Amino acid sequence: MALIVHKYGGTSMGSTERIKNVAKRVAKWHDAGYQIVVVPSAMSGETNRLIGLAKELSDQPDPRELDMIASTGEQVSVGLLAIALQAIGKQAVSYAGWQVAINTDMSHTKARIASIDEVKVKRDLDAGKIVIITGFQGVNENGDITTLGRGGSDTSAVAVAAALKAQECLIFTDVDGVYTTDPRVVSEARRLKTVTFEEMLEMASLGSKVLQIRSVEFAGNYKMPTRVLSSLTDPLLPLEIEANSGTLISFEEDTHMEQATITGIAFNRDEAKITVFGVPDKPGIAFQILGPIADANIEVDMIIQNQSVEGKTDFTFTVPRNEFNKAMDVLSNGVKQHIQATGVIGDAKVSKVSVVGVGMRSHVGIASQMFKTLAEEGINIQMISTSEIKISVLIDEKYMELAVRALHKAFGMENT
Amino acid sequence: MALIVHKYGGTSMGSTERIKNVAKRVAKWHDAGYQIVVVPSAMSGETNRLIGLAKELSDQPDPRELDMIASTGEQVSVGLLAIALQAIGKQAVSYAGWQVAINTDMSHTKARIASIDEVKVKRDLDAGKIVIITGFQGVNENGDITTLGRGGSDTSAVAVAAALKAQECLIFTDVDGVYTTDPRVVSEARRLKTVTFEEMLEMASLGSKVLQIRSVEFAGNYKMPTRVLSSLTDPLLPLEIEANSGTLISFEEDTHMEQATITGIAFNRDEAKITVFGVPDKPGIAFQILGPIADANIEVDMIIQNQSVEGKTDFTFTVPRNEFNKAMDVLSNGVKQHIQATGVIGDAKVSKVSVVGVGMRSHVGIASQMFKTLAEEGINIQMISTSEIKISVLIDEKYMELAVRALHKAFGMENT
Repeated sequence: MALIVHKYGGTSMGSTERIKNVAKRVAKWHDAGYQIVVVPSAMSGETNRLIGLAKELSDQPDPRELDMIASTGEQVSVGLLAIALQAIGKQAVSYAGWQVAINTDMSHTKARIASIDEVKVKRDLDAGKIVIITGFQGVNENGDITTLGRGGSDTSAVAVAAALKAQECLIFTDVDGVYTTDPRVVSEARRLKTVTFEEMLEMASLGSKVLQIRSVEFAGNYKMPTRVLSSLTDPLLPLEIEANSGTLISFEEDTHMEQATITGIAFNRDEAKITVFGVPDKPGIAFQILGPIADANIEVDMIIQNQSVEGKTDFTFTVPRNEFNKAMDVLSNGVKQHIQATGVIGDAKVSKVSVVGVGMRSHVGIASQMFKTLAEEGINIQMISTSEIKISVLIDEKYMELAVRALHKAFGMENT
Repeated sequence: MALIVHKYGGTSMGSTERIKNVAKRVAKWHDAGYQIVVVPSAMSGETNRLIGLAKELSDQPDPRELDMIASTGEQVSVGLLAIALQAIGKQAVSYAGWQVAINTDMSHTKARIASIDEVKVKRDLDAGKIVIITGFQGVNENGDITTLGRGGSDTSAVAVAAALKAQECLIFTDVDGVYTTDPRVVSEARRLKTVTFEEMLEMASLGSKVLQIRSVEFAGNYKMPTRVLSSLTDPLLPLEIEANSGTLISFEEDTHMEQATITGIAFNRDEAKITVFGVPDKPGIAFQILGPIADANIEVDMIIQNQSVEGKTDFTFTVPRNEFNKAMDVLSNGVKQHIQATGVIGDAKVSKVSVVGVGMRSHVGIASQMFKTLAEEGINIQMISTSEIKISVLIDEKYMELAVRALHKAFGMENT
């Protein structure tokens, strides 16, 4: 019997009525002869409620205790789903991460999965039971509960699927797949039937919120076929799903050779740009600027250092917009003086637009087509960064939607 | 350094503001040089909310899954209290029952504690940390979460205190101790400074809701001095508490020799009485009646079998009122025919009133004083049951408060 892992998000688990629908869908797969492991998220709003309580007690709650608290949301979900399945005649059993065990490293609130014991789960599956495992969490060597960070249930699902050598991991969510770009911005956006792992990785890291990036990494490391699909439709027959629904993250690049050069356009509204100017151009300067930023736990994305002129250079980087004030404070309080920079300026109203596609590797001219399209719309490019399969530009946030629509059209993405 | 265990109920943990107050109280004890272990309940209403969700999915949810769900309430509490303590500069660490571990038997929703590992907790205490342990729950041999039933956090606290050989277990609650009877019924009711373990056991089993009965059993088995006191007062200095507050469950009967013969009057409004009449008086009849009742998981309290007349007898017993209909169904569907009884009648409007006191052992005339008092008030006694230190009577529920007040006065309890 083939084993399939289902993951359901917080919206799908948002009420007992919705949990009953999830149970029906899971039961349908089980009826069709599959072994099923389900990884549900906490009921929507629950994790925020729990973390909110902790924040009422302390601005910087202890991460170990935060994990103790936040992990309960998923524990409630697995128990409720087991009961819902039993109520429609299925044998079901739930496990918390520590019970499986899902072993993680020692970090709290952003732990990484190290290994998964599959003994208990396999025994239950072989006994005909549906197994339900908490997403988002595991246990470390000390026996402390750890959580994997926001979206961690996706990662749990893919990791469990990999550990159990599942045939496929189905991520049921409130969208019906991965689109060429956000349909709310470009009405012609088109659902992709397949996307390569590398493209998905770029899309996820570039702000496409469909899948948590670490779940995509896991899928890649273990070559686990992972499908994103809607939990809002009626339960379909499994075969119909496979044929018609969602987006499959695939690991066979060949299948893409006939496809378009560009797979998707990702964007992130909430960027902020900081420039340190008049910096003496000497070794170690990047570390002296970015070290304190990293110490403040601020993620840096794009980084550019200009050619120096008369021994001075400018250094520009981007941070998430909600970290902008903190980053500016870090630089103004000490760093600027320490490195003898002339000044620090910032702009919190910038956005990033990226075109992604493995086809880029074998096609020239993608970058020039992109820059030409933006120029025709009068959009100034502030920063550029590239990888083998993506090109990102930073632009004024007010042009973001225009840029996405223009690029979507220029690359003919609505009808490929 | 002396070790003290604190237990806080759901009302004391009912909001982040109240959790801050609990933290202050705990910190005050820690400042005074005590090692402190805290066992908090779930925030008030939380366990009911969680069980309510499960009941929306199934009338008879799987007990294992119920435990999975219900145990999260306490897990949130311990994390929040740890954060609240850290916010006022204390080192604190929380543990779920399975982390300690608190090992239980295999029953779900009413598990019994088998053993407690004290290694982790002692290590943390010796390092100066305040240790916070989830009440109400443990883990069984399979690694499944179990819960101890309603009020189970009291039991957890006393069991933890016993395992750690604590000096005293303090049960902080929303009343300031154990009273001679319910002050809402008798305004002259008086707080008892001490009560013996056996009296407390009778009071708890007779419906005095202050402490869960199994926590009292634990206190007795391990001779753990346990004190019930209010969490609503300002934090007192530990010594003031010992001298003036709450009610201490003691194990030294001597201290009671000079005290009153009657310690308290307990009552339970919600009783129901069932009589099976015209039953052939032959061996095994009690089992044939009560066996099916026990199989239906209904607790039976008082039992009376009349002297038989012409080979026929009547058999009467009491059950909790909310089990009355179920018990009547069990008897009407089969049992009555099977034992060839003439009929089954029930009365769901009866209450039980009990006088309790170790002093009874050495005093005669308590029973007759009790019966005389009730007779003077025109209250008919329907059933009587006695133990070494208590006398219980079943009466029409409409006379219950009158009976309690009259007995409280007759035994001079307001001023002993």
